[in-house]
Amino acid sequence: MELQELNGGVTAAPGFQAAGVKAGVKNWQKRDVALLVSEVPAAAAGLFTTNRVQAAPVRWTRDVVARGKVRAVAMNSGNANACNGEQGLADVRAMAETAARLLGCRPEEVAVASTGVIGVPLPLPRVLEGLRTAAAELSPAGGAAAAEAIMTTDTRPKEVAIAFTVGGRAVTLGGMAKGSGMIHPNLATMLCFLTTDLAAEPPWLQEQLRRAADDTFNLLTVDGDTSTNDTVLLLANGLAGNESPRPGSPEEEAFAAALAHVCRRLCRLMAADGEGASKLVEVVVEGAGTREDARRAARAIASSNLVKTALAGADANWGRILSAAGCSGADFDPERVSIRLASPAGGIQVAAGGRGLPFNEDEARRILAEREITIRVDLGGGRETATAYTCDLTEAYVRINADYRT
Amino acid sequence: MELQELNGGVTAAPGFQAAGVKAGVKNWQKRDVALLVSEVPAAAAGLFTTNRVQAAPVRWTRDVVARGKVRAVAMNSGNANACNGEQGLADVRAMAETAARLLGCRPEEVAVASTGVIGVPLPLPRVLEGLRTAAAELSPAGGAAAAEAIMTTDTRPKEVAIAFTVGGRAVTLGGMAKGSGMIHPNLATMLCFLTTDLAAEPPWLQEQLRRAADDTFNLLTVDGDTSTNDTVLLLANGLAGNESPRPGSPEEEAFAAALAHVCRRLCRLMAADGEGASKLVEVVVEGAGTREDARRAARAIASSNLVKTALAGADANWGRILSAAGCSGADFDPERVSIRLASPAGGIQVAAGGRGLPFNEDEARRILAEREITIRVDLGGGRETATAYTCDLTEAYVRINADYRT
Repeated sequence: MELQELNGGVTAAPGFQAAGVKAGVKNWQKRDVALLVSEVPAAAAGLFTTNRVQAAPVRWTRDVVARGKVRAVAMNSGNANACNGEQGLADVRAMAETAARLLGCRPEEVAVASTGVIGVPLPLPRVLEGLRTAAAELSPAGGAAAAEAIMTTDTRPKEVAIAFTVGGRAVTLGGMAKGSGMIHPNLATMLCFLTTDLAAEPPWLQEQLRRAADDTFNLLTVDGDTSTNDTVLLLANGLAGNESPRPGSPEEEAFAAALAHVCRRLCRLMAADGEGASKLVEVVVEGAGTREDARRAARAIASSNLVKTALAGADANWGRILSAAGCSGADFDPERVSIRLASPAGGIQVAAGGRGLPFNEDEARRILAEREITIRVDLGGGRETATAYTCDLTEAYVRINADYRT
Repeated sequence: MELQELNGGVTAAPGFQAAGVKAGVKNWQKRDVALLVSEVPAAAAGLFTTNRVQAAPVRWTRDVVARGKVRAVAMNSGNANACNGEQGLADVRAMAETAARLLGCRPEEVAVASTGVIGVPLPLPRVLEGLRTAAAELSPAGGAAAAEAIMTTDTRPKEVAIAFTVGGRAVTLGGMAKGSGMIHPNLATMLCFLTTDLAAEPPWLQEQLRRAADDTFNLLTVDGDTSTNDTVLLLANGLAGNESPRPGSPEEEAFAAALAHVCRRLCRLMAADGEGASKLVEVVVEGAGTREDARRAARAIASSNLVKTALAGADANWGRILSAAGCSGADFDPERVSIRLASPAGGIQVAAGGRGLPFNEDEARRILAEREITIRVDLGGGRETATAYTCDLTEAYVRINADYRT
């Protein structure tokens, strides 16, 4: 199957428009309110935080997605609208109602997503005014502004789009995400919005999203905390005119590959832009006895502060990698483990049979000084693999988070 | 029961001698090899890392403790003797044999503990020479030097000792520990050695140690990683001349209270000296439905990088506390949670009913600027409680760990 990279994000696919505006939720310097609209009702799938504390927009949007059809998504950054009690729910409803009025649809077709500080009431009048401005600015070129408007501590917007074919029809799939801090399996304060002109049934779409997220967003960790607001939405408006793919069909396979590609790209963008990150890190675990063992080990290594600080210092401290795998709960024989570190500057084997190998420290340092690192761990006990996505842990991370609210 | 604080640590109790010497394992500036000796064989209890990767000294010492009697502990810092394969085990045996020869006991009565870098062969000749020097310097005043010799990135030695009575007999209990980085439930690279002149049977002693550790060391977290070398040993040489306490007896109660006190003190010393720490933090979770829910929530809050960085910045970011509890797996109703922050500078209620309360930010900042912070979270759903111990996460932590090996 051929995937063609496109510019753009959530408005790359036909029939989607977006806008992102400065509404004063954060300050007046940055975009902070966005609208994403499908010209026809779109089949919807969604994944949400597993945190017991769920922000008001998550509770609202879960219900919207459960009904299967979405016309629009109203978004804001700067305030998570979490831990605000009944007022929080009332404010979400006001956002959905305002958007619905502006767009001529029902509030129940409007998903809502918020990200930012927890426990501070939403500045509702500004958000609603922002939605009005955004509705007036909606455009098929508005994806980039929307991607900016959902940023919190992100240093850059994150957009991906590709074209491919499903059953002979040209299909586009695009997406935008915000990540940065507080990212951890499962999901993160991570907002991610995916749009496609594919025609599909909601339950099938939900299954595709679940599978793709399982190998990407659910193995992405920046700092080990899972937020109250994590939301991934996939909207499919059907304008490609294909027949809805059936389970197990080549059409399903084509779309699944495209979705996996987009999710992986967004994952890497989020990891690379983790708070204070100087490096994108992929942890590839191979040779596991079970898929769950592979996932556990990959996650534990990707979550280890000690591994992540060593990478910040370009230190090939493989003992920390092995030790992190050792406390992951994964079943493996430590004496069969080998570890390899790689980057665009080269690769180096640092351990085999559970023991260190002699290696050139200068070469290791040169490899780890790059901005994209792969840690490859072979557990030597099977054929299962998993890849986790993370970044290094730097002093900048601490600076950013010691002072987030102020 | 009355506990009397004493000076000293592992040699506070009668019949114990120790020494700590400079053997060149780290460099020649710092003590790095130590011996702890009981003049008569001591009943022994031990707890060890749950990491799947277990250092050679852990594997050796587990067997020693299983036999129930210990005469001596040989220790070194600067090298963990982990991930060194067969050579690692041979080196541990050499340490035990050398100590046994020097002390006139059997190698099987010599426990061994190492801490430091992983995957680098032990510089055995230096360690053995250090043991010889230490044997010549053994003294009832040598506890302080031993406590220094087991330090890695610790900034100060950690010793505690108390006197109390068991069945009318005066009993002493002392201990030393090293902690600092890589500390997490269950246990940590944490070495902890406790000595008492109590007379007791090994299985009873093991049960006392397990209970005390469960409420202290197993709820201590500095950075979320569990090491390959964690070891807690409790030696009881019987010189107090008491009858061995029976389960459920007042004698058991007296000793358990003393042991809990010493473990808690050492725990607090380790948390306060966590790598880069500027603050000791106790997380008290109350109102949980089950003990496990209380422990989960306390651990999750104490482990959260976001909570710990906020504390470094004296930021009363209670949303992160609630969110961390929310992803702990503990069962509770977020809308019944209240949160209070306290320190020697005062206390302040920041949330109730799952929502933020208006509070004075300046006052909160003044409270959180202190060196000892208590986070008190009432889940509002039961009567179970747990206390976890941690520290804040600072830029210094990253600096220390980005550059540990070099």
